[in-house]
Amino acid sequence: MSPLPSELAYVPFVSVENMMRLVHHLGIERVLTDLADRIEADFLRWELFDKTPRVASHSDVGVIELMPTSDGEMYGFKYVNGHPKNMKDGLQTVTAFGLLADVDTGYPKLLSEMTLLTALRTAATSAMAAKHLAPKAAKTMAMIGNGAQSEFQCIAFKAICGIDTVRLYDVDPSATDRCAANLAQRGLTVVACRSAEEALEGAQIITTCTADKQYATILTDNMVGSGVHINAIGGDCPGKTELHRDILLRSEIFVEYPPQTRVEGEIQQLDPDHAVTELWQVISGQVPGRTAARQITLFDSVGFAIEDFSALSYVLAAIEGTEFFANLDMIADPDDPRDLFGMLQRARD
Amino acid sequence: MSPLPSELAYVPFVSVENMMRLVHHLGIERVLTDLADRIEADFLRWELFDKTPRVASHSDVGVIELMPTSDGEMYGFKYVNGHPKNMKDGLQTVTAFGLLADVDTGYPKLLSEMTLLTALRTAATSAMAAKHLAPKAAKTMAMIGNGAQSEFQCIAFKAICGIDTVRLYDVDPSATDRCAANLAQRGLTVVACRSAEEALEGAQIITTCTADKQYATILTDNMVGSGVHINAIGGDCPGKTELHRDILLRSEIFVEYPPQTRVEGEIQQLDPDHAVTELWQVISGQVPGRTAARQITLFDSVGFAIEDFSALSYVLAAIEGTEFFANLDMIADPDDPRDLFGMLQRARD
Repeated sequence: MSPLPSELAYVPFVSVENMMRLVHHLGIERVLTDLADRIEADFLRWELFDKTPRVASHSDVGVIELMPTSDGEMYGFKYVNGHPKNMKDGLQTVTAFGLLADVDTGYPKLLSEMTLLTALRTAATSAMAAKHLAPKAAKTMAMIGNGAQSEFQCIAFKAICGIDTVRLYDVDPSATDRCAANLAQRGLTVVACRSAEEALEGAQIITTCTADKQYATILTDNMVGSGVHINAIGGDCPGKTELHRDILLRSEIFVEYPPQTRVEGEIQQLDPDHAVTELWQVISGQVPGRTAARQITLFDSVGFAIEDFSALSYVLAAIEGTEFFANLDMIADPDDPRDLFGMLQRARD
Repeated sequence: MSPLPSELAYVPFVSVENMMRLVHHLGIERVLTDLADRIEADFLRWELFDKTPRVASHSDVGVIELMPTSDGEMYGFKYVNGHPKNMKDGLQTVTAFGLLADVDTGYPKLLSEMTLLTALRTAATSAMAAKHLAPKAAKTMAMIGNGAQSEFQCIAFKAICGIDTVRLYDVDPSATDRCAANLAQRGLTVVACRSAEEALEGAQIITTCTADKQYATILTDNMVGSGVHINAIGGDCPGKTELHRDILLRSEIFVEYPPQTRVEGEIQQLDPDHAVTELWQVISGQVPGRTAARQITLFDSVGFAIEDFSALSYVLAAIEGTEFFANLDMIADPDDPRDLFGMLQRARD
């Protein structure tokens, strides 16, 4: 047998099982709130990050993407797929994992599942944006699309924005039933609705999160009254939108990273020079967010690498001193770095 | 406790320890030969692959890169860093890991260490190229630069090209000593040399593999006679070259992927339209390789994503039915794919 690898050879790995244990250990509302704080803090230093549009590999049935970024000290990337047809085969539409590495050495510092973590960071980002953009007194959210992301959204808006009522709608009533059941005893009033119109009644915040890879119209113009905040999650790749173009034309639009959102977001329906505001500029106080009670604010969210970086950084800090990770022997670390071959040879001897 | 994840949730992981066990189980010469065959087969279907220049994140001290590709059925990427200053801190200059995923579902199928695997595939690629380009009767190779890659190169050229003598030189004599000791009893005549000039004596193949991130001149024009094959490994990023420009001007130059090599290879010293030949076209018989005995052939190798794809595919096939991997619980796989939250909740209950 070869000698045990040195500490440098080990990369902490957070499995799905350990991510679930970590979330329960801390409590999901605390995780979402802490994540929103971490993402907000990273949006405040937005200009410092390397920003690259994601690197996508498209096929007829889906997409596989790498989303890298760096703040100059740490480097992070996420692997994520999007395969809408997976659902009917009993597979996840989206799976993901991510990595953090030390910029100074290039050595990985964390490998983590990110299927759950992406659901958590997406919900935390949505609620963090709404904190800056939605009407202050908002208590009711319409949740259109009751898939894998829906419960995370509802709980994040409760924990971070003070929402007390969610009105659920999905084209598939069984999805609404599942979402409603999962949200029982979470301190939310949950109303299952039979149409999108019914779900919108009295809602100051509208979250849309449906999964078809096609131009869909989940909301038409006449359904949306003045003064609401729209949190548009589902329109997140070329050819996949949820809102009628007329809604966009009536809204003040906020985005993460315009070069990416113009290709992937709802605003792919608009002229390339249509005015949008970058969310980080609102958070840093450089430009105003909501400026009038009757204004429709729209967060056209597609998910950006910095949010994943924030989430991975949070997990790296959160697992310290816990048992919620395993060490992977992922990096060859010979005693003499030039002697990679000797390490191999000694493993045999 | 939550129920065990389904089989879909598991991703086979090949650790450094298991990669070493796999190599010893099969024998290193067989692994190098099989890898060369696999890489050659993938070069034959070169046009089928998605080809993207690597996505690099540069810092003052190094670079972190993602190298993705796909053949339409499988998708692969490698994470790799290059930090020349790591050596003096007792760290590897290059560490790497890689992933294969199913294009049809986006689900990962293999996670593997690639520090060792990159050393193996680089050596296999070099020897495979030399098989097509070097003088047929070549028996002696000069190995300039005796770092972590050097033993792998020497063994690959023995196994694949029939080299029987290697002449070693490094600016640091202790590196030469280590390389020579590691190559003992490998069926090679090993000659430790005190200068690059001495190492070149009688060599039909010259491999250069030094690690400084700077424009260096390991070989000057007067050192290189006619009829040799140069395997230039070390010039592999912007600002890092090893050969005097005049050697390039006398050579027939072969490269992996011109858009990448013009930025990263020795040919960054030449005009952007200087004629080069793509190696895959030689392998497929579309263009000739070596056409005259007095010709200098130069393989300006920087490493390309398809070689990593070939290597990962080889490992995925090689571990089947063995114990040389562990299953990682890396992908969330709820029974109902829309019920990610329910999976989380049931893990607590």
